[in-house]
Amino acid sequence: MEKLVGALMFGQSGGPSSVINSSAAGVFTEALKQDCITAVYGAAHGIRGVLNEEFYDMSKEDPKELMLLKNTPSSALGSVRYKLADFKKDDTDYKRLLEVFKKYNIRYFFYNGGNDSMDTCNKISKFMKKNDWEMRVMGVPKTIDNDLFGTDHCPGYASAAKYVATTMMELKLDANVYDTPMITVVEIMGRHAGWLTAAASLANYKGLGPDLIYLPEVAFSTEKFLADVEKKLAENNGKCMIAISEGIANADGELIAETLNKNIAKDSFGHAQLGGVGTALANLCKEKFGSKTRAIEFSLMQRCGAHLASKVDVEEAFKSGAAAVKYAVRGTTDKMVVLKRDTTPSGKYKCKIGVVGLSKAANTEKKIPAEWIINDGTMLSQEYIDYALPLIQGDCKAPLEDGLPRFAQLKKVLANK
Amino acid sequence: MEKLVGALMFGQSGGPSSVINSSAAGVFTEALKQDCITAVYGAAHGIRGVLNEEFYDMSKEDPKELMLLKNTPSSALGSVRYKLADFKKDDTDYKRLLEVFKKYNIRYFFYNGGNDSMDTCNKISKFMKKNDWEMRVMGVPKTIDNDLFGTDHCPGYASAAKYVATTMMELKLDANVYDTPMITVVEIMGRHAGWLTAAASLANYKGLGPDLIYLPEVAFSTEKFLADVEKKLAENNGKCMIAISEGIANADGELIAETLNKNIAKDSFGHAQLGGVGTALANLCKEKFGSKTRAIEFSLMQRCGAHLASKVDVEEAFKSGAAAVKYAVRGTTDKMVVLKRDTTPSGKYKCKIGVVGLSKAANTEKKIPAEWIINDGTMLSQEYIDYALPLIQGDCKAPLEDGLPRFAQLKKVLANK
Repeated sequence: MEKLVGALMFGQSGGPSSVINSSAAGVFTEALKQDCITAVYGAAHGIRGVLNEEFYDMSKEDPKELMLLKNTPSSALGSVRYKLADFKKDDTDYKRLLEVFKKYNIRYFFYNGGNDSMDTCNKISKFMKKNDWEMRVMGVPKTIDNDLFGTDHCPGYASAAKYVATTMMELKLDANVYDTPMITVVEIMGRHAGWLTAAASLANYKGLGPDLIYLPEVAFSTEKFLADVEKKLAENNGKCMIAISEGIANADGELIAETLNKNIAKDSFGHAQLGGVGTALANLCKEKFGSKTRAIEFSLMQRCGAHLASKVDVEEAFKSGAAAVKYAVRGTTDKMVVLKRDTTPSGKYKCKIGVVGLSKAANTEKKIPAEWIINDGTMLSQEYIDYALPLIQGDCKAPLEDGLPRFAQLKKVLANK
Repeated sequence: MEKLVGALMFGQSGGPSSVINSSAAGVFTEALKQDCITAVYGAAHGIRGVLNEEFYDMSKEDPKELMLLKNTPSSALGSVRYKLADFKKDDTDYKRLLEVFKKYNIRYFFYNGGNDSMDTCNKISKFMKKNDWEMRVMGVPKTIDNDLFGTDHCPGYASAAKYVATTMMELKLDANVYDTPMITVVEIMGRHAGWLTAAASLANYKGLGPDLIYLPEVAFSTEKFLADVEKKLAENNGKCMIAISEGIANADGELIAETLNKNIAKDSFGHAQLGGVGTALANLCKEKFGSKTRAIEFSLMQRCGAHLASKVDVEEAFKSGAAAVKYAVRGTTDKMVVLKRDTTPSGKYKCKIGVVGLSKAANTEKKIPAEWIINDGTMLSQEYIDYALPLIQGDCKAPLEDGLPRFAQLKKVLANK
């Protein structure tokens, strides 16, 4: 196949992670090596940067800084939550994208994100094909939620999981210091899939985990919750530690965060802005049991705690980005890069890179298999531990400078300046 | 001086820290070496363990596990918040202590904690002297609050400060990803002294810190706060990151946490259980400015995040414990170990160990010097950076096992069993 010659545009979308920039580093370093790629652009704030003609010339960056991106959390280029319309209904944005693509001869469009971002990729690819603009469109997966279809796991998940497991262990030690009753409710991210909350069970595997874990995969009943807690309090001298997903919902699918707290804001995708369900449940416990309770939210720390990144995750995120470039140069388009577990016969974890169709990846959510959820919906089985443990291996963080992380400092030279 | 022959009792008190067990490791390993110390006991839950005759024989522990204590957060022996009465009013507890001390020939009593713990030490020492029980009483300092009198800084502070600074840097990157207005309010521990909140300014030194910092040392005015935020929003495209101490109070000394939130519980020392002031101020901002706001609490993570411990802190905490034993064996009593900064002529940070009288250390709070607080009470000066930066140097954490920390596992063999 003849090589497609032109520029590459890369954008970051959705909530950041500890390793989203590692994927960016993989894309940039590989793209800068390819002869057929005439320019490498990084979009400021994802698709909005393309629409606004705000993107950076990545060849102007110091290669050392690009490598520091591997250990720099959050979206270095800036992210966005912007949902493209169906182009059959409104093609304004798409026409503008085509205009920009033509102006800069952009023939490679890569988008890094979760379900919504794969949907964006898919729509753009379809429109460009319809309008005879030859281009290679690739999705690079990223989500701490680990809910993307077609990949064994998602870059970003393992580092967040390592944050959750490590911090749960530390909190468990802290929660046990006084010999007085204490209920601790830890709220963990995850709207529809409980993968990240499930990572709390890795702390159990190390003997320092929560007593109860509640996931969006299991219909939540406040009555059962209080009964579960009561039982644990009796077993554990009045102590109970609980990990709860922000997205737990009742049997009717109503979010507990919404049934317990009113006036919840929504983001531009129409998702409810969750949070606060841990506090609400801690208050319920305090009312019923009278003991000291504490609600803890891992908040943004769980997604940006790059100082606790998993080495496996950092490396896989980098490889995912680099592989997307290699695939596209070889002619692949309309695919999302995926990670395929390839455990050796001796049981050693290995991982290969593959691809899956964008339309399959877009808007399909992968949940935790029901059979991995045990103890009447309050704990994860050994199958989950076997799945997740290989992913959180090894430390890999930014070098220290004055005792604090030295993150990448990009020049961000605008391409049209 | 003739050596005092007898057993040593060590207890941990108050809120735990990332390095409180490092001090314990220092005490135990040094005490186990001393011929005149006939037994080394670790009190279960501090003074309550002594009263209840529940303490562990530390000679039964594997020395490797004792060394793992250096990197194990929280209080391995269990902690307590228990205020001894004035013995002139009620000497019940003191008589019981004397009874236990006699029964086990305890001649060395060491207590690890903050102001309240030094007060406990001081009272016990006075009572034993009055009742002719010869013993050496030593305080080992510990507090993330860094508010103990007579020491340059307190073991536990630097690791918590490193957690705060590193996490602020990561949060700042995260808070900047979207190009939409966003106010982030981060609540940090500290009842009366703002040392830990001040550590957020170390992130500023690295270019990734909060725009505004509010400390208990400066009278807080809600009107001024909103005006400060408004100014920063105008300067920074609608973005503002704020670090706020849980203990901020108005000019009348009333806690903002109490004036904004009612029904706050109190602990057994009569301290209000703070928390929630960040959320309350974030809500005020949302009301006034209408933009997205987020309240983040570092909660217990800031005091138990041993994976981010400072090497300087871990080593100094260990040395403080070991030094307490050496001082006491040589005849010192009624003192708290202190850290004395001893910077070399070339500017290299060094630290010597000294002692200060227990009565001076007890219940005296050291606050941030007023001249270190600049920008109309919203930022720390270079003097603070010069003070704090040497303390957070180096990483030192538990070895990884299966990708997660391997913390100490003590046998906890009760001495009277």
